[in-house]
Amino acid sequence: MSSMGLPATENLLETKEINERSFSSDGKAHHHIYKVGIPPKQNLFKEFKATIKEAFFADEPLRHFKDQTKLRKLVLGIEAIFPILSWCRTYNLKKFRGDIISGLTIASLCIPQDIGYAKLANLDPQYGLYSSFVPPLIYAIMGSSRDIAIGPVAVVSLLLGTLLSDEIDPTKHREEYRRLAFTATFFAGITQATLGICRLGFLIDFLSHAAIVGFMGGAAITIALQQLKGFLGIKTKKFTKKTDIVSVMKSVFNTAHHGGKKNNKYFWVPAIAPLISVVLSTFFVFITRADKHGVDIVGLIERGINPSSVDKIYFSGDYLSKGFKIGVVAGMVALTEAVAIGRTFATMKDYQLDGNKEMVALGAMNVVGSMTSCYVATGSFSRSAVNFMAGCQTAVSNIVMSIVVVLTLFFITPLFQYTPNAILAAIIISAVIGLIDFEAAILIWKIDKFDFIACMGAFFGVVFISVEIGLLIAVSISFAKILLQVTRPRTATLGKIPRTSVYRNTQQYPEATKIPGVLIVRVDSAIYFSNSNYVKERILRWLIDEEEQVKGDYQTKVQFLIVEMSPVTDIDTSGIHALEELYRSLQKKSIELILANPGPVVIDKLYTSNFANLIGEDKIFLTVADAVAYCSPKMAEDP
Amino acid sequence: MSSMGLPATENLLETKEINERSFSSDGKAHHHIYKVGIPPKQNLFKEFKATIKEAFFADEPLRHFKDQTKLRKLVLGIEAIFPILSWCRTYNLKKFRGDIISGLTIASLCIPQDIGYAKLANLDPQYGLYSSFVPPLIYAIMGSSRDIAIGPVAVVSLLLGTLLSDEIDPTKHREEYRRLAFTATFFAGITQATLGICRLGFLIDFLSHAAIVGFMGGAAITIALQQLKGFLGIKTKKFTKKTDIVSVMKSVFNTAHHGGKKNNKYFWVPAIAPLISVVLSTFFVFITRADKHGVDIVGLIERGINPSSVDKIYFSGDYLSKGFKIGVVAGMVALTEAVAIGRTFATMKDYQLDGNKEMVALGAMNVVGSMTSCYVATGSFSRSAVNFMAGCQTAVSNIVMSIVVVLTLFFITPLFQYTPNAILAAIIISAVIGLIDFEAAILIWKIDKFDFIACMGAFFGVVFISVEIGLLIAVSISFAKILLQVTRPRTATLGKIPRTSVYRNTQQYPEATKIPGVLIVRVDSAIYFSNSNYVKERILRWLIDEEEQVKGDYQTKVQFLIVEMSPVTDIDTSGIHALEELYRSLQKKSIELILANPGPVVIDKLYTSNFANLIGEDKIFLTVADAVAYCSPKMAEDP
Repeated sequence: MSSMGLPATENLLETKEINERSFSSDGKAHHHIYKVGIPPKQNLFKEFKATIKEAFFADEPLRHFKDQTKLRKLVLGIEAIFPILSWCRTYNLKKFRGDIISGLTIASLCIPQDIGYAKLANLDPQYGLYSSFVPPLIYAIMGSSRDIAIGPVAVVSLLLGTLLSDEIDPTKHREEYRRLAFTATFFAGITQATLGICRLGFLIDFLSHAAIVGFMGGAAITIALQQLKGFLGIKTKKFTKKTDIVSVMKSVFNTAHHGGKKNNKYFWVPAIAPLISVVLSTFFVFITRADKHGVDIVGLIERGINPSSVDKIYFSGDYLSKGFKIGVVAGMVALTEAVAIGRTFATMKDYQLDGNKEMVALGAMNVVGSMTSCYVATGSFSRSAVNFMAGCQTAVSNIVMSIVVVLTLFFITPLFQYTPNAILAAIIISAVIGLIDFEAAILIWKIDKFDFIACMGAFFGVVFISVEIGLLIAVSISFAKILLQVTRPRTATLGKIPRTSVYRNTQQYPEATKIPGVLIVRVDSAIYFSNSNYVKERILRWLIDEEEQVKGDYQTKVQFLIVEMSPVTDIDTSGIHALEELYRSLQKKSIELILANPGPVVIDKLYTSNFANLIGEDKIFLTVADAVAYCSPKMAEDP
Repeated sequence: MSSMGLPATENLLETKEINERSFSSDGKAHHHIYKVGIPPKQNLFKEFKATIKEAFFADEPLRHFKDQTKLRKLVLGIEAIFPILSWCRTYNLKKFRGDIISGLTIASLCIPQDIGYAKLANLDPQYGLYSSFVPPLIYAIMGSSRDIAIGPVAVVSLLLGTLLSDEIDPTKHREEYRRLAFTATFFAGITQATLGICRLGFLIDFLSHAAIVGFMGGAAITIALQQLKGFLGIKTKKFTKKTDIVSVMKSVFNTAHHGGKKNNKYFWVPAIAPLISVVLSTFFVFITRADKHGVDIVGLIERGINPSSVDKIYFSGDYLSKGFKIGVVAGMVALTEAVAIGRTFATMKDYQLDGNKEMVALGAMNVVGSMTSCYVATGSFSRSAVNFMAGCQTAVSNIVMSIVVVLTLFFITPLFQYTPNAILAAIIISAVIGLIDFEAAILIWKIDKFDFIACMGAFFGVVFISVEIGLLIAVSISFAKILLQVTRPRTATLGKIPRTSVYRNTQQYPEATKIPGVLIVRVDSAIYFSNSNYVKERILRWLIDEEEQVKGDYQTKVQFLIVEMSPVTDIDTSGIHALEELYRSLQKKSIELILANPGPVVIDKLYTSNFANLIGEDKIFLTVADAVAYCSPKMAEDP
């Protein structure tokens, strides 16, 4: 067994293999030392607690409560619900400077947007402004994201407008329509808060990233086209300043689109451009009285802050259930947007965000909103990006914005009377164009074709059919993907990578050699009722393929089937049954079934179900290499 | 590097480790040789085809059609639809002997059962017999299971009876009730055939084994109690032969229950006991005229074979949609039972069964059945077991049974007039008791507690609420489990098993040692949108745990995070995003992210998404051992 006198590298490799060989032939001793570990039996309650904990409290929300006095726990509890109490203690002037600048910036952006979005939802302009006053305040007290900018957003406004108009005609029955909108907002809030409290936040993960990209893009196109129609309407009428506006538009367009993506120092250009163009165009319309020459203007906006709307919510009757349904859908979509924004910025600034707590905050804000004449508010993509770039530090920027909005409601709204609708359309278009994420779509195309179908399905569904259908397509395709995942797990045949004891997928490593007489199959998923039959049949099919090939090549007949179980993290009764059936089928063909590296849960279940005894405990190995060593002591001689 | 002179085993282990070490320190050269394999780029169409094929044609149904002439393909196609054409060519007298014995046996068992089951479905007795005539014939021509016994079954009869009575009162509106039953049967058949043709057979896998055990048990108890009420009803009336019947019952009971499970030569005792007790009791009732003394009898059964019912199916109106809904539910439940039986016996006799083809056969038989006055038929557990034990060879046993039933309908039905209902109740009880699978329930309890909840949920749902609710509970719990599976995949930290280069779960192998400064985490599932956030956060949580522990023990700070990706078979855009976020979070903590053994699909996507370049291609290793070797060249020195 001497390995001296050979050149360095080869020498090492050679020795390794020789040892591997000798070592393997001494298999028995080795297996006694490294039997597959059986974890200590947990008691039932513990097991259950662990499952529940991992399912609903994966983020250990109570981590900080451990080992604290009762009073401290109470304080921590209150702080958990109102994070403002904990961060306000370290608040300082420097932070306030960042917040006031960013607050003013997003306020200047949100005011014209709000007026436009309210129209998307078929509501009067002031309701958009109302929704930028109360909800941001509530969020500032309860929310934990530092960068999100709260208020009405384009997609939710469009969705709400579409769903509500399906029930009530917004022009004929203004009052009922508005009441249904508040009802929907109320239930949107309830839905959000409930998901958060029940810690079911992971449900929104079922809308895949690809589906959201498609849905958002489709909604943006729909909104843009809708606005463009109004915008181009000017042309047919006499309007002298047309070209000016178009050029202003173009610049707003371009800067807003690009500005939102890069962290440059001119972020404020796209941010305040809308307000400036509103001011300018309003001024021009006012002095030229263009409204008398066919230019649509916003018209009088009611002055003053939000009236109460508690008594306007439908708590009974036919509209209750309708409002509930619309609220659930709008609430979920709003959540998706807010959580995505929250997560993005939390990662950028590296702070933790509790998704479930966020949902409670968003829910509470919409419930309160629904009682103060607001419609569904959430985190806005465009304004949050501007907020971040303007250097916001805490949710105080939302408070600043909220105050500016109140001042606007009191003093400035009358001035908006002469604002041309065309300019609002342009502002909305420039805001929603940013939602079309070409780059993401291209990346999705590159990475995952199935995702791309989901993305395009949602996109075309929204554009050509309707927002609801687009959303439905997005959710359905997402679910189909999950279905495929759980019913059709991947399997692979393994081969030995030359000069190692490592066994890998033969498709990925064509140089990996198969062991004559041994078929090694890896199952790449937990074996559950949803896939147990498939897994069994797939393994048998690998065997048939192998047998056919072996027959053609006059090779050794397959005598051993090694199932590599490393990725099989769990198995249920159906899975055990499938293994038993596999074992019996193999017995008929006089092929030995051997398992390699079952995990802790699996090994436990193999023993309790007696399957380990059925196939023989000595047929379960720690590694594929050990299993192969057991199968054919001759194997090592012809690699 | 000499290893001579040491005792044998130790010597080998020692050498191995030394080599491992030297080998690892020579890591660079090694990595050049064994880079992680990137599989050749497939074109888009191929990729799609492969996915679709694996999802819907996993069993390669067209395997036999390859490389055949057109005529041969046509013949094979026809044979695929009508398997009788292929097996009848090798049919012989020996097989026929087996089939005739088993056919007669199941006929003797099915006749009294049919009469009883028809009553469960609130239909006249002859409809049960009708359903044992046409469907078995159709199945014999189109089906491919050799052991299944087709006809009405207890659970489906009960389910159908319950669902139909919810819509129409069976006593007040007999004709409408019957028409709705045929409508439901028609749509049950359409559902089954559609699932088969669209190759969506895997959908029935979503009813987990545990849920079925619970549901069946609950249905059995419900049926038994229902029958017992009628059965005990005798007591209050004067009936002299009471004790006799009870004793007959008891024996039937016990033998049927045990006989169905063991392959002994007295299988025919429970099989023909029902018919004998029917004959005996009918005879006693007839001679004593006990019906005049308060014993309920079956009464006159209409003579002759199935009348046509094509014109009775509701193809329009309100009942169309009701019939459709009931049909879909009953069809799915019937499928579950038939497929489970088919699979069990196919495994026992080692022949292949194409689930989707079976569904088409079952669907066709129910569609034809609905037009010939039959209600939903499927494979019966009790009769199939008897069929198997009586030595059936092919579906000819079903034909034999069918002929016997026809003869019965023509000549013997008048004799059933005096059969006491009590004896039918007892026969039903004895048949359904076999559906209560205590052993399976105990095994489920042992293996998987979550499965046990599903089982009990379905069981108590059926027993205490209703069949539909029980079914709903079973399906919901099954889905909840899938949800949990896809949203909360397991993760584990790995450690090095002493004296090997194998890294395993530290929970399962407490002796596995962690490498100071290195945290190794394995993700046990494909990373998709449904779990990408969880996976990211879970990995970060492992890191926090590790950091806290390290801080407490004054150990080396974590500098490297190795993610073992062997079980990660796929990743989508959300997954890539999660990895990017993970990478960024780690960068902030100056921890290096290293990947070990990504699979073919994953490595491809890591490259196309540019993530491989982001973290550095040299940070992706073939094995954890290689990755560890890269991380800390010093590691090998202190194991």
